[in-house]
Amino acid sequence: MAQAQVQRMSRLMVKTLRDDPADAETLSHKLLVRAGYVRRNAAGIWSWLPLGMKVLENVSRVVREEMDAIGAQEVLLPALLPKEPYEATGRWNEYGAELFRLQDRKGGDYLLGPTHEEIFTQLVKDQCTSYKDLPVILYQIQTKYRDEARPRSGILRGREFQMKDSYSFDTTDEGLAESYALHREAYIKIFDRLGLRHKIVSAVSGAMGGSASEEFLAPAAAGEDTFVYCPNCDYAANTEAVTFKQQPEDPAAHGPVEELDTPDTPTIETLAAHLDVPASHTLKNLLVKVDGEIVAVGVPGDREVDLGKLEDHLAPATVELVTAEDFEGRDDLVRGYVGPQGLDKVRYLADPRVSSGTAWITGANKPGKHARNVVAGRDFEVDQYLDVVVVEEGDPCPNCGSDLKIDRAIEIGHIFQLGRKYADAFQLDVLGQNGKPVRVTMGSYGIGVSRAVAALAEQHADEQGLCWPREIAPADVHVVAAGKALQTELALDVSEKLKAAGLRVLVDDRAGVSPGVKFTDAELIGVPKILVAGRRSGEGVVELKDRRTGEREELTVDEAIARLSA
Amino acid sequence: MAQAQVQRMSRLMVKTLRDDPADAETLSHKLLVRAGYVRRNAAGIWSWLPLGMKVLENVSRVVREEMDAIGAQEVLLPALLPKEPYEATGRWNEYGAELFRLQDRKGGDYLLGPTHEEIFTQLVKDQCTSYKDLPVILYQIQTKYRDEARPRSGILRGREFQMKDSYSFDTTDEGLAESYALHREAYIKIFDRLGLRHKIVSAVSGAMGGSASEEFLAPAAAGEDTFVYCPNCDYAANTEAVTFKQQPEDPAAHGPVEELDTPDTPTIETLAAHLDVPASHTLKNLLVKVDGEIVAVGVPGDREVDLGKLEDHLAPATVELVTAEDFEGRDDLVRGYVGPQGLDKVRYLADPRVSSGTAWITGANKPGKHARNVVAGRDFEVDQYLDVVVVEEGDPCPNCGSDLKIDRAIEIGHIFQLGRKYADAFQLDVLGQNGKPVRVTMGSYGIGVSRAVAALAEQHADEQGLCWPREIAPADVHVVAAGKALQTELALDVSEKLKAAGLRVLVDDRAGVSPGVKFTDAELIGVPKILVAGRRSGEGVVELKDRRTGEREELTVDEAIARLSA
Repeated sequence: MAQAQVQRMSRLMVKTLRDDPADAETLSHKLLVRAGYVRRNAAGIWSWLPLGMKVLENVSRVVREEMDAIGAQEVLLPALLPKEPYEATGRWNEYGAELFRLQDRKGGDYLLGPTHEEIFTQLVKDQCTSYKDLPVILYQIQTKYRDEARPRSGILRGREFQMKDSYSFDTTDEGLAESYALHREAYIKIFDRLGLRHKIVSAVSGAMGGSASEEFLAPAAAGEDTFVYCPNCDYAANTEAVTFKQQPEDPAAHGPVEELDTPDTPTIETLAAHLDVPASHTLKNLLVKVDGEIVAVGVPGDREVDLGKLEDHLAPATVELVTAEDFEGRDDLVRGYVGPQGLDKVRYLADPRVSSGTAWITGANKPGKHARNVVAGRDFEVDQYLDVVVVEEGDPCPNCGSDLKIDRAIEIGHIFQLGRKYADAFQLDVLGQNGKPVRVTMGSYGIGVSRAVAALAEQHADEQGLCWPREIAPADVHVVAAGKALQTELALDVSEKLKAAGLRVLVDDRAGVSPGVKFTDAELIGVPKILVAGRRSGEGVVELKDRRTGEREELTVDEAIARLSA
Repeated sequence: MAQAQVQRMSRLMVKTLRDDPADAETLSHKLLVRAGYVRRNAAGIWSWLPLGMKVLENVSRVVREEMDAIGAQEVLLPALLPKEPYEATGRWNEYGAELFRLQDRKGGDYLLGPTHEEIFTQLVKDQCTSYKDLPVILYQIQTKYRDEARPRSGILRGREFQMKDSYSFDTTDEGLAESYALHREAYIKIFDRLGLRHKIVSAVSGAMGGSASEEFLAPAAAGEDTFVYCPNCDYAANTEAVTFKQQPEDPAAHGPVEELDTPDTPTIETLAAHLDVPASHTLKNLLVKVDGEIVAVGVPGDREVDLGKLEDHLAPATVELVTAEDFEGRDDLVRGYVGPQGLDKVRYLADPRVSSGTAWITGANKPGKHARNVVAGRDFEVDQYLDVVVVEEGDPCPNCGSDLKIDRAIEIGHIFQLGRKYADAFQLDVLGQNGKPVRVTMGSYGIGVSRAVAALAEQHADEQGLCWPREIAPADVHVVAAGKALQTELALDVSEKLKAAGLRVLVDDRAGVSPGVKFTDAELIGVPKILVAGRRSGEGVVELKDRRTGEREELTVDEAIARLSA
């Protein structure tokens, strides 16, 4: 726990605002600014004021304690980094405009670290030479930099932010799995202690490379990530990572292919209307260019292709939509009337819903013609199944088949099994037990420390203001002196007693501020317990209020202290 | 105190080196690298490894506790800062090449903060509106950036470094003096707790502007600052800030001016040799251009003019040396034979040593001629006295007159009364008690947190390695298991008991490492107490060694624990 103390509002730099800042869209942005926790310096660049600093420090402390508990060792690497290691892995260019780049007085190229895989790999290469030196988990709580295209939502998506990043180094895949599991458990403990409701979802690892990867998401309306979850079982996933479980049918159960005259129906909408069938009965064949080669992607007519998912699946190949010019000289491709049957020269990718034995209405590869009863596995073959459709609420849970739900969330943590990508780039080997060099395998793990503060504010607030869980609140109790000298005296006296009982106290001892303003400020600031020295101060009776439930009770000072230190 | 814990060397990432790094010049650089505390990433850019991180954290904790104790409020401002506030004060340009500048993706100009006066002034302008909101002292422990021309000496002078900077805001000069005094006392406590021997010296405030200013210097051979101190009284000063106490004599006590034939003696050396007198009997008249105007500066012939001091005194005017062309058309200036008597058209500045009543041999303003018995206050007047000579060992103490000593030191802290310079730049006013706006007056105060670690290493080391004071050591006790299973078992058992007694323990439980290497490493790492589970482990007897004194004694485990937790 943080140290017992008494903070007097009369001396604390905290200026609360009654109105939302003009540029604020999200709840946490509005409340953290209005309650005097943070202040904007420039787009995506923020200052932490005294109250905010306490919350940030509390979050850091919890993260530190749980990282130490899994044997992780704290270090501090520089934020200003030379270009060379990031050139070695290609990330100097891959990061694009998101990387802050600068030159020193001698013209040397530097960057402000967005994440430190390269530098940790170099560090371990320098420090660890034998399998005996591993496994090792290193972490830092550090300022990170990303030049976001649209910094917004207050501290939720900043350009300078606080992050805990850690890196594990093992000699075996099993070791990596264990380091990964240690982090997974530590993260659950951290978010539980912080009071952050969260879901663990499988994730596509994206630009980081590597194999296994999960995200920790804090459900919140302000979240920029969408995820699906099953209300029936514990399944949850990033929308990009949802898979559809195939249930192949018998291809022989359908009648023969039947050609239909369907003039002027080049789109799914026109076709479904013309035939008076649901769009889900039709098969949409999207043509794209993968590294320049035309490829068809088949999905049910009522579903959208998620080009991002497609690109992730096919990376590092690039994916582009076809244009009119691409059809020139390609008599096999009849625009608007493409069907997978007889598409011999084109690779055919399909959504798992287009499983073997399913029958479709699709293009007949002739202008103005479609075909019915075109059966997968009988009339055409799928070269590769890929989950590429945009997930929708009501899609079946891959675990239990129940209808999935979709929600918004804030990504607060991410754990990756990187494997040997970075170790390969820097030839990170250690001497193995058999005397031969072993290539090291790595994991990388992050928690957005400043973002966690925003996520907490999103999850723990009401119309009156913030409402922190105790572990990370800027104080345990907010003592309000209603105003008269006697009340202020009692408030300060109780505050000292609460401090002696080991509590962190914020006491509103401001002179010339009305009780109403003080109560409003206390609700806005959001310390979990509010203790008022008011009307009955002369009798030594105070009012104790729970910020969350609003429950109040009158207690003697001793009772109140006993209650609060319980 | 930091938390009790057991750190096992078998799992700790620490690689000690037997040889000094090739590029290391200073003791702290050599030892901190060899003992595995820090690692270089680029010129002036360093990583803090697990052991170093503990020391850095301990220093930060002490700083934080003492800042909190004077009512300072912790905040965290960004390191990446927009250009505009620094343009408002002119520092965007004044900082020159020392400032890291960069652009974001939209071409906006940014800098990496070297110090935060501007940003704190803006913050307080936004947060504090009434005299009731002041005084306020804000501090942060933050990463700072300066693109040093010659980053060197390891972490002593880095380009990215940790600093505690604080800023005080008051409505009156008395308030500022009080905030300054609070900092001065807090700094003394901090450096005393850290175990850093230090001197407080008056300083010329230089580029920061403002009035009163003192430096905290840690005497060390690796220091880049020189300072003078009096071995007799408590006087100490930056060499640039030493003043000479005038003792005017009677101008009438000397004979009349006497002209001397001194052919070919345009320099002090040739003149003193020709006349066979000490150079100290002669008066050197240096001609300089102050903002283009020729001015003469008189100092005793045996002393050097410190052009930096002269420039500081005359700032913001620029000072240049005269060239041959400046003498053209100036018949009153006879090159090599200038004397202050009859120099009517030239402003005459002089060192206080040229006090009223002192008699000198100086130029006669005729080629090949000098004059004897030229008396200050009789034969010439000094327009302005300025302390401009280079201080030398043996100069009189301005306090008590004893011979001053000169030593080298590391600047570890700096306190400034800035006054209203920054408040003026940003029109920082608050509403005064009389309802009228009051311009705020500021102080700024810094402690080099990472530099303090280097200064500690410089002051607390011997030929075997580091030797930390307990408060900031990475552990309280270093337990060494000599090697056998029984010894390792005892070492781990004792370690747990020491932890239970509230101690921070580093235990060398490494297998396959010889006792000799372990002892050498323990001396190098420098934990203040070393406890060896060796030869007599079977009897439950251990050896306790004091790292600093080298004293050893054999004790039972219980005795050792009692001794260490005392």
